[in-house]
Amino acid sequence: MMKADGCSPPVIAVDLGGTKIAAGIVSAGCEILAREYCPTLADEGIEAIIERVVSAVGRLISRQGMGLSQVCCISVAACGAIDSETGVIAFSPNLPGCRDIPLRDMLRDRLGVKTMLINDANAAAWGEHHLGAGKGVNNLVCLTVGTGIGGAIIIDGRLYTGSSGSAGEIGHMVIEANGAKCRCGNTGCLEALASGTAIAREAAAHVARGEPSSLSEIVAGRLEDITAEKVAFAAREGDSLARSIINQAATYLGVGMVNLVNIFNPEMIVVGGGVAGMGDMLLDPARRVVRERAFLVSAEAVSIVSSQLGSDAGMLGAAIFALQQVEK
Amino acid sequence: MMKADGCSPPVIAVDLGGTKIAAGIVSAGCEILAREYCPTLADEGIEAIIERVVSAVGRLISRQGMGLSQVCCISVAACGAIDSETGVIAFSPNLPGCRDIPLRDMLRDRLGVKTMLINDANAAAWGEHHLGAGKGVNNLVCLTVGTGIGGAIIIDGRLYTGSSGSAGEIGHMVIEANGAKCRCGNTGCLEALASGTAIAREAAAHVARGEPSSLSEIVAGRLEDITAEKVAFAAREGDSLARSIINQAATYLGVGMVNLVNIFNPEMIVVGGGVAGMGDMLLDPARRVVRERAFLVSAEAVSIVSSQLGSDAGMLGAAIFALQQVEK
Repeated sequence: MMKADGCSPPVIAVDLGGTKIAAGIVSAGCEILAREYCPTLADEGIEAIIERVVSAVGRLISRQGMGLSQVCCISVAACGAIDSETGVIAFSPNLPGCRDIPLRDMLRDRLGVKTMLINDANAAAWGEHHLGAGKGVNNLVCLTVGTGIGGAIIIDGRLYTGSSGSAGEIGHMVIEANGAKCRCGNTGCLEALASGTAIAREAAAHVARGEPSSLSEIVAGRLEDITAEKVAFAAREGDSLARSIINQAATYLGVGMVNLVNIFNPEMIVVGGGVAGMGDMLLDPARRVVRERAFLVSAEAVSIVSSQLGSDAGMLGAAIFALQQVEK
Repeated sequence: MMKADGCSPPVIAVDLGGTKIAAGIVSAGCEILAREYCPTLADEGIEAIIERVVSAVGRLISRQGMGLSQVCCISVAACGAIDSETGVIAFSPNLPGCRDIPLRDMLRDRLGVKTMLINDANAAAWGEHHLGAGKGVNNLVCLTVGTGIGGAIIIDGRLYTGSSGSAGEIGHMVIEANGAKCRCGNTGCLEALASGTAIAREAAAHVARGEPSSLSEIVAGRLEDITAEKVAFAAREGDSLARSIINQAATYLGVGMVNLVNIFNPEMIVVGGGVAGMGDMLLDPARRVVRERAFLVSAEAVSIVSSQLGSDAGMLGAAIFALQQVEK
């Protein structure tokens, strides 16, 4: 479906997450030709974020010795409730203050290039469905476990985006009605219990209560420096507090998957995102919860697998999405 | 789509629920010509249930002065994980002991008439989508709140049944990870917290602890006689315990709807089933929870409405399903 000839112009794909901005030049044959990364620093507000996206795109272009006129378009995968038709971010729990922002047109006006906007979890799912773990699988649900938890639903080989473009907010499925507060304003969301942020928060809270853990040394006593990555490192080194915290998050992730399995009876659940880099340390307890708690017939029908495209899924999916739009 | 001429033979539609069996003769124009009801008595096992279905069908036929040969087919809507292709009930939390039962073929062998099997919540949704509250609505989720809680998903005007036919088990979505035990073996399912059974169980538990309520009088001290219907009656009469129990169930129902709104971003949620007969006493608190806890953009896009077909939804949907299969 994608043009693989070297003559078609490449796409600039940007994966705008709550923590990190990744930008890449992606060929029409879906090869990533160059990459740039920078922190999102979401608290500085949308104008500052746009500035950083523009700089990253500029650095990419100049590194490749290209001009923006040689680019087919810019495709941005961003976290939050996004309407791809209008190019507006309605709301994003991980980009504070971001409400009804016409990000697509703001970027187009800054860069003078055709721009597209897609939800980051939808982009990652689209990437996995075309090039990764979900190739050939027509009913699948994708989870992106990172700073937040994104979700995307592919039904009959098509992205399901709902009646106003904001379906798939699986991270904001309540699994503990009176549970921890979530950044979206709700309580007990999957994201509030099983995301990287939740893992770091829980670990810091336990260490602050004086529970013994190598994490205090790892962050030299600065509890605010605890991240899900550091908790995973400590767990792999045998730290029992870190292990129990990851196990708890994985159990909650499993409960979320039970719901997906009972609701969607999907062929596959693909788990990507930074936290999913923990691999089977996260997925094995989650798979066990699905076996124990989901309807047997649906539990037996589903494979729960790691993303194959890893941190490139969003960027590649955004590029594929753009190339398909342009082809239309 | 449906043939409305009086010449096409009618369908016998059976709605087999956890508490009650309803059977009807439905014309090709979707009119219910006659009805029969009897209790399911699910604990007596599947053979006894089949016997009662056969008797009900017999009574219907003879009352109409018809023979089975004058019937187009029999269409059974039953609760549980059902594969309409094979006609098998894989599992049904509300029909104890019912595992891998080829109900379609068992009934066909008993009655000698072409028989079809569909999940009862899917049937009710199909009825509402063609003749009721969801007419013309292409993205909708239906909830059937009765003894259990069934669910059904219509996407792009088609029933979504998943990769092995068992999608839509919304009643078995966990919303309180460590909550009340559910009949499906899981804990904290929506069904365990907001179904008729849950309402009756909670009311009986509170009355047993000596909390003052008119319910003790209503059931003359026999707590096992408390039903959701009686709790609703007491609540309407101003009983404060009954009110708080219904309010709690409605709040949980609202949390379940928050999940549906965030995941599906549907145009409509249709609520049917016996317990939904409570109307706005149940739906108003649930709607408030959705407004307070769901993503704004999706909460604004959804209407939460009562079933229009009421207790006929399953029967009519089963009939429409059968008529469409026969037309193919």
